[in-house]
Amino acid sequence: MVPRYARPDMTAIWEPEAKYRIWFEIEAHATTKLAELGVVPESAAKALWDWWATNPKIDVDAIDAIEQVTKHDVIAFLTWVAENVGDEARFMHQGMTSSDVLDTTLAVQLMRSADLLIEDMDALLEAIKRRAEEHKYTPTIGRSHGIHAEPVTFGLKLAQAYAEMLRNRERLWDARAEIATCAISGAVGTFANVDPQVEAHVAAEMGLVPEPVSTQVIPRDRHAMFFATLAVVAGSIERIAVEVRHLQRTEVLEAEEYFSPGQKGSSAMPHKRNPILTENLTGQARMIRAYALPALENVALWHERDISHSSVERFIGPDACITLDFALARLTGVIDKLLVYPERMQANLDRMGGLVHSQRVLLALTQNGVSREDAYRLVQRNAMKVWESDGRLSLLDLLKADDEVTAALSDEKLEERFDLDYHFKHVDTIFDRVFADTDDSDD
Amino acid sequence: MVPRYARPDMTAIWEPEAKYRIWFEIEAHATTKLAELGVVPESAAKALWDWWATNPKIDVDAIDAIEQVTKHDVIAFLTWVAENVGDEARFMHQGMTSSDVLDTTLAVQLMRSADLLIEDMDALLEAIKRRAEEHKYTPTIGRSHGIHAEPVTFGLKLAQAYAEMLRNRERLWDARAEIATCAISGAVGTFANVDPQVEAHVAAEMGLVPEPVSTQVIPRDRHAMFFATLAVVAGSIERIAVEVRHLQRTEVLEAEEYFSPGQKGSSAMPHKRNPILTENLTGQARMIRAYALPALENVALWHERDISHSSVERFIGPDACITLDFALARLTGVIDKLLVYPERMQANLDRMGGLVHSQRVLLALTQNGVSREDAYRLVQRNAMKVWESDGRLSLLDLLKADDEVTAALSDEKLEERFDLDYHFKHVDTIFDRVFADTDDSDD
Amino acid sequence: MVPRYARPDMTAIWEPEAKYRIWFEIEAHATTKLAELGVVPESAAKALWDWWATNPKIDVDAIDAIEQVTKHDVIAFLTWVAENVGDEARFMHQGMTSSDVLDTTLAVQLMRSADLLIEDMDALLEAIKRRAEEHKYTPTIGRSHGIHAEPVTFGLKLAQAYAEMLRNRERLWDARAEIATCAISGAVGTFANVDPQVEAHVAAEMGLVPEPVSTQVIPRDRHAMFFATLAVVAGSIERIAVEVRHLQRTEVLEAEEYFSPGQKGSSAMPHKRNPILTENLTGQARMIRAYALPALENVALWHERDISHSSVERFIGPDACITLDFALARLTGVIDKLLVYPERMQANLDRMGGLVHSQRVLLALTQNGVSREDAYRLVQRNAMKVWESDGRLSLLDLLKADDEVTAALSDEKLEERFDLDYHFKHVDTIFDRVFADTDDSDD
Amino acid sequence: MVPRYARPDMTAIWEPEAKYRIWFEIEAHATTKLAELGVVPESAAKALWDWWATNPKIDVDAIDAIEQVTKHDVIAFLTWVAENVGDEARFMHQGMTSSDVLDTTLAVQLMRSADLLIEDMDALLEAIKRRAEEHKYTPTIGRSHGIHAEPVTFGLKLAQAYAEMLRNRERLWDARAEIATCAISGAVGTFANVDPQVEAHVAAEMGLVPEPVSTQVIPRDRHAMFFATLAVVAGSIERIAVEVRHLQRTEVLEAEEYFSPGQKGSSAMPHKRNPILTENLTGQARMIRAYALPALENVALWHERDISHSSVERFIGPDACITLDFALARLTGVIDKLLVYPERMQANLDRMGGLVHSQRVLLALTQNGVSREDAYRLVQRNAMKVWESDGRLSLLDLLKADDEVTAALSDEKLEERFDLDYHFKHVDTIFDRVFADTDDSDD
Repeated sequence: MVPRYARPDMTAIWEPEAKYRIWFEIEAHATTKLAELGVVPESAAKALWDWWATNPKIDVDAIDAIEQVTKHDVIAFLTWVAENVGDEARFMHQGMTSSDVLDTTLAVQLMRSADLLIEDMDALLEAIKRRAEEHKYTPTIGRSHGIHAEPVTFGLKLAQAYAEMLRNRERLWDARAEIATCAISGAVGTFANVDPQVEAHVAAEMGLVPEPVSTQVIPRDRHAMFFATLAVVAGSIERIAVEVRHLQRTEVLEAEEYFSPGQKGSSAMPHKRNPILTENLTGQARMIRAYALPALENVALWHERDISHSSVERFIGPDACITLDFALARLTGVIDKLLVYPERMQANLDRMGGLVHSQRVLLALTQNGVSREDAYRLVQRNAMKVWESDGRLSLLDLLKADDEVTAALSDEKLEERFDLDYHFKHVDTIFDRVFADTDDSDD
Repeated sequence: MVPRYARPDMTAIWEPEAKYRIWFEIEAHATTKLAELGVVPESAAKALWDWWATNPKIDVDAIDAIEQVTKHDVIAFLTWVAENVGDEARFMHQGMTSSDVLDTTLAVQLMRSADLLIEDMDALLEAIKRRAEEHKYTPTIGRSHGIHAEPVTFGLKLAQAYAEMLRNRERLWDARAEIATCAISGAVGTFANVDPQVEAHVAAEMGLVPEPVSTQVIPRDRHAMFFATLAVVAGSIERIAVEVRHLQRTEVLEAEEYFSPGQKGSSAMPHKRNPILTENLTGQARMIRAYALPALENVALWHERDISHSSVERFIGPDACITLDFALARLTGVIDKLLVYPERMQANLDRMGGLVHSQRVLLALTQNGVSREDAYRLVQRNAMKVWESDGRLSLLDLLKADDEVTAALSDEKLEERFDLDYHFKHVDTIFDRVFADTDDSDD
Repeated sequence: MVPRYARPDMTAIWEPEAKYRIWFEIEAHATTKLAELGVVPESAAKALWDWWATNPKIDVDAIDAIEQVTKHDVIAFLTWVAENVGDEARFMHQGMTSSDVLDTTLAVQLMRSADLLIEDMDALLEAIKRRAEEHKYTPTIGRSHGIHAEPVTFGLKLAQAYAEMLRNRERLWDARAEIATCAISGAVGTFANVDPQVEAHVAAEMGLVPEPVSTQVIPRDRHAMFFATLAVVAGSIERIAVEVRHLQRTEVLEAEEYFSPGQKGSSAMPHKRNPILTENLTGQARMIRAYALPALENVALWHERDISHSSVERFIGPDACITLDFALARLTGVIDKLLVYPERMQANLDRMGGLVHSQRVLLALTQNGVSREDAYRLVQRNAMKVWESDGRLSLLDLLKADDEVTAALSDEKLEERFDLDYHFKHVDTIFDRVFADTDDSDD
Repeated sequence: MVPRYARPDMTAIWEPEAKYRIWFEIEAHATTKLAELGVVPESAAKALWDWWATNPKIDVDAIDAIEQVTKHDVIAFLTWVAENVGDEARFMHQGMTSSDVLDTTLAVQLMRSADLLIEDMDALLEAIKRRAEEHKYTPTIGRSHGIHAEPVTFGLKLAQAYAEMLRNRERLWDARAEIATCAISGAVGTFANVDPQVEAHVAAEMGLVPEPVSTQVIPRDRHAMFFATLAVVAGSIERIAVEVRHLQRTEVLEAEEYFSPGQKGSSAMPHKRNPILTENLTGQARMIRAYALPALENVALWHERDISHSSVERFIGPDACITLDFALARLTGVIDKLLVYPERMQANLDRMGGLVHSQRVLLALTQNGVSREDAYRLVQRNAMKVWESDGRLSLLDLLKADDEVTAALSDEKLEERFDLDYHFKHVDTIFDRVFADTDDSDD
């Protein structure tokens, strides 16, 4: 975790205090059920919850101090709770195994992290949608291979981003379901010393479902899928980040990351406004992708479990969640305040002197009786002049001045062929595809 | 693709002929719709389908030869079709872009690959289930950290594998849905020269759904998710492979990969039967994981598209699908014919002289009036002798001979505590969780 | 391996015939030494080499057919050799283990691949050097964050690429040394049945050094380092590829991948010339990087060896080497024939109306008695006009027309500050650093 | 960074204070040279070094507070220094760019980290060597595929580890050389405003060499190679960790991670001593491998530089170095105190009833006139009985009781064939290969 790339709500989930709170809840809910089953006295559960109702402060340092002696984190915690709750606390943890608490806690932390990530995603979707609608019909050049192709609108670019992030929202929900399971099943998962009803109760109380087969641990294919999903989301973040970086290039400059009116890009050079937020996001995406790898290697634990996954998860649990949370929020800010320059978009679109319309003129000529070969020759001889002028000449002007062309097409018909709107007739269709469903959900 | 790790059905999906067949179908379905819309003559579509009805052989070499001249694969194919179909073929591909065909074809190939993988998974699930039921109550030692923990059954191990693979089956279905989309949207995805109805028609005919926003290409977050899912499945394959490799170790030898009665493990050493299939699977899992990485890097294409993803997909499209298909089939064979040695499982379970039951004795003593401290001391002094004998002494025998112990617990009560079945009372519960739903689906 | 990304010399190294030739040489050299040591008859070695002197064709199909029966590749090969050489061949392989042959063969294949890669690198370095010298003083704008910064020369860009590739050449030599080792040490590496002198002899004859400790296999940290090095080289290829892709963007267009005069970029649009070679290289770089991962996972073999590395190496051995060989050659072609547009570079450099020189004017004013605050104000008020004109106004012209500025700096002094050559005074120093040593090596 | 996997010396390198100290040294050395060159007054350098000689405390909070205002870390630092040093400090940083300081600082941090890692490696090598010599002739079974193969010694296992780590030590030196470069070259690396002599001076003072071509940044192929090398070292750590985990398995138990006499493995089960340190190392190896990936992706920066690498390096710079430092130290402790059980090794070696010697009996029979077929039959019929007895019968005893065998081989000759020492005759040769050179270096 790098503090400058961390936001407080997500960080809090991964701090010791939050972990201990979840530990307590799991233990206390289990005790409640054990009491119902007659395994431990009702008074034990009551004592625990009564103490909890006082909203006690978790003394992390005190627990750490006990762990220095016991060399066992769960025992240290239980000891500290007993010191506070009193004798009744000794009934806690009956028939359970440390991993029951640890793995279920990780599930809760990941689930809560997923909830925050989905909230982040909603905010991002909202921002993209707003800007997409704002620029639904803002013309800009579409580029394949970095080379001008045909016109699109800036809204369409954002609609694509929206559709992609909507898929990511869905994937995050699936990922959340993957890891939201509970295991209270004992040393090797046989429930030898703890009734499955305890697991069912704790699961329900913590918002989880019981893990069908745990083997001291919850199987790590779930976590692999979770972190792999985060990696895919990171890829999509990178795609938008790279788009912004491209649009902000000096020669393109169709959009820029926001900077306040008085802000200085550089003390020396007024033209220096760098897309540092999106460059930063590009690097963060690399990290989030990287974290998926050890999660994938974690799946093949030995027999019922080995503990090699644990050190990995101490890193990637917080690091992947905190970084993605930060990245989503940062990207939302970028989109929200993105400076968009429609005039520059139009200027870039026009910089080839109308060559982007040459194909339509070609078709019009053939549809008006000119042979394919002749049509190609006519367009080409004018297009080449435009090309050689680096776009300073206008294809339309040249065509209007070419007698062989005007013999087949009137000025009016020629002008029609240079109509940008032709390209945008299905923008609405595409917007409907992308945003239609989501309008309902906003109501 | 490594031929020895490739099976014919999956390989066929990725061969040139299969690709050209899909190309034709996409082009012909598009022509059908274009004819309906009045853009091209009805006769054009008819000519294409009439020729197709003759079940023509795809002449890959002829198409390649044309490509040598045209330097363009789609044009080469269209030219070859035109040579065979005749003049009407010139109406094909109207308003479309090469990527419309290429990306939709990749979608079909991946979808068909997913179908095979799901079939493979069904076969694997079937094999695991059969062996799980066979060994539902075969006792074996559960191991955490590679160290004996408490008893489980071999069926439980397999039930875990089943539950994990069932999740993978679900994930494969999700992955299939991710990539089963169709794009016929023109140069930058605006439908400028092709009506969206064409896309809808082709999608329906090919078993796909229209891509909400394509930008010459289908967005690569879909493919990233697909290959990431394959990587997770590979992790689960590796988990089972590693389990078998462990069980086959000389010192453990609770199970072995099948070898026929007359087969020689080694010409020199009769004890040499190596788990080479599962070692091989371990390596294949590493490859399938590796293929997810470039797929994740492919997401951030420049602007409407760049073509960097293409070379990656020429490798990983076939390589990941073919290798996973092979791995699933190989693993199914391993499970199906796995030699299981219950006697050896029992012997290993017993090799610690009954120490695995020490915890239950401890509890019984405390429940029969012995203080916790005394109980621990009594069990430990006998357990230590067993431990020091490397399991040659029996804990139960020693306890029966310890007067302080027998003062609290009768022989009968002691014997009860060494009852393996105690650990298996919830095997049925777990099996119900895992297999219950699937029984329905088999009906 | 994707055939279109494969060149014949590298591919040949990885074909069955080449493998069998190496197998033979290893076995024959071992037999020679065994004969010297008196372990086998001299006639055995002579028979093998006499047959080899006839330059026999390796009948791969025949060997495959035998393997179908023996289920063992090395035995199949030995059998086939025996069929050809006669009875004396039975002394081959005495005291050796299959892995002795297989691992040493992989070493030879990787070493020969490294030799080709180093040759490729030399050709690439030659091409970069030639173009760097050609454009040593071709001014172009240096960009940080994709934004104009200060002037550099195009030669400097290439000098950087040269220095980076020179490092890669060194790394490839190190990687070659990593894997060029020989193991002829028997079943678990103890030389129990084969004298270490055999290993020493085979090593010397094959151009290898003996592996200090082999354990049936050569340790895989060596191969991990080899493939990790290839991944670094791929990263450098990607860096140049991305640079070319940027330079070819429509709005930048300072350089282009070569296309022949008559070539059509697109049948419809004359401006469409796509940087497809460098996009393709970008994708290939992703693959080569990915291949390093399973190589890294291969290191931790179980005990003296497991065979999980083998399936991995069947993929990445050929795939990584063949793809990198292709990529280096393709990049060499790109650099060699790159179309460079100095006028456009100058135009882009000038497009900010001289703002890139604002810092030097600021310093000159302060050095001529204007206070820092005043100097900044004076420069800024003119620079802002240029910025707002999108570079259509000239900073120099405005400054010359600003009385407060000219009171401190004459026109001549102002002009001096707009001298591009100021930035290039150390180009020679840098070129000396990069190319000095290599000039010697060319003699 | 996970605090529990961090050691203070390495962590200190990556803390803000250490960073600021390096910043100061770079700036002060640069000022010294600038003064020599007459660019700034001699008094400026003197003032800086005079202040530094007072060993001032770096007030990280104060610098942070300034950064809150300036939004620029280097400017904040320079401001704070100026507040402390006084007016002369304004001559610092003349002609330099922030990256000159930042990138050179990273080089120093990585170089110092490499120094610590090499020290760690020396300690590890020392521990391995000591244990290798201790167990040079301790017999143990060699295993391929996890299956008993032929005898080795425990010292040989460690000699292999030593040779591998010695290679890693060499690789770490190479990696150190990769990143130990200095760039003081200005905004785009042209030295436009700072003389190359400044760079040369700073480099020499800081223990670095000048970067041949920097472009605001030091090229990232160097860092990629650095982190890739760390990943290879991690692979080797994992190999040893996995070996220990295997050896500690209940059924094998040939070695164990140390635990103190009074220590409890588990409160319930005395047999529970888990190899948690090496499992933990296995997970850490996964992380260190993962960190190499974003470093490889960082290579392809845009043009002269983009800043996407920066966020990556804020994570992996400390995380990879700190984790590897911890892992090397932990592994050293494991090796140093490893509990080795030669009796158990011998017992495991013998557990197959002498079958590991069957090949040598086979050869002896053929060398004593028995046909190959007969010899195989004779050995096999006895070996099978041993196999079926699960090693309870002795192959030697059975052979001695087989008349057909004894007709060819006397008891004495048979016994010779069961001589373990036969396998160890070249142990000395191998030890000489591995340790010979290193003995000199210890003198």
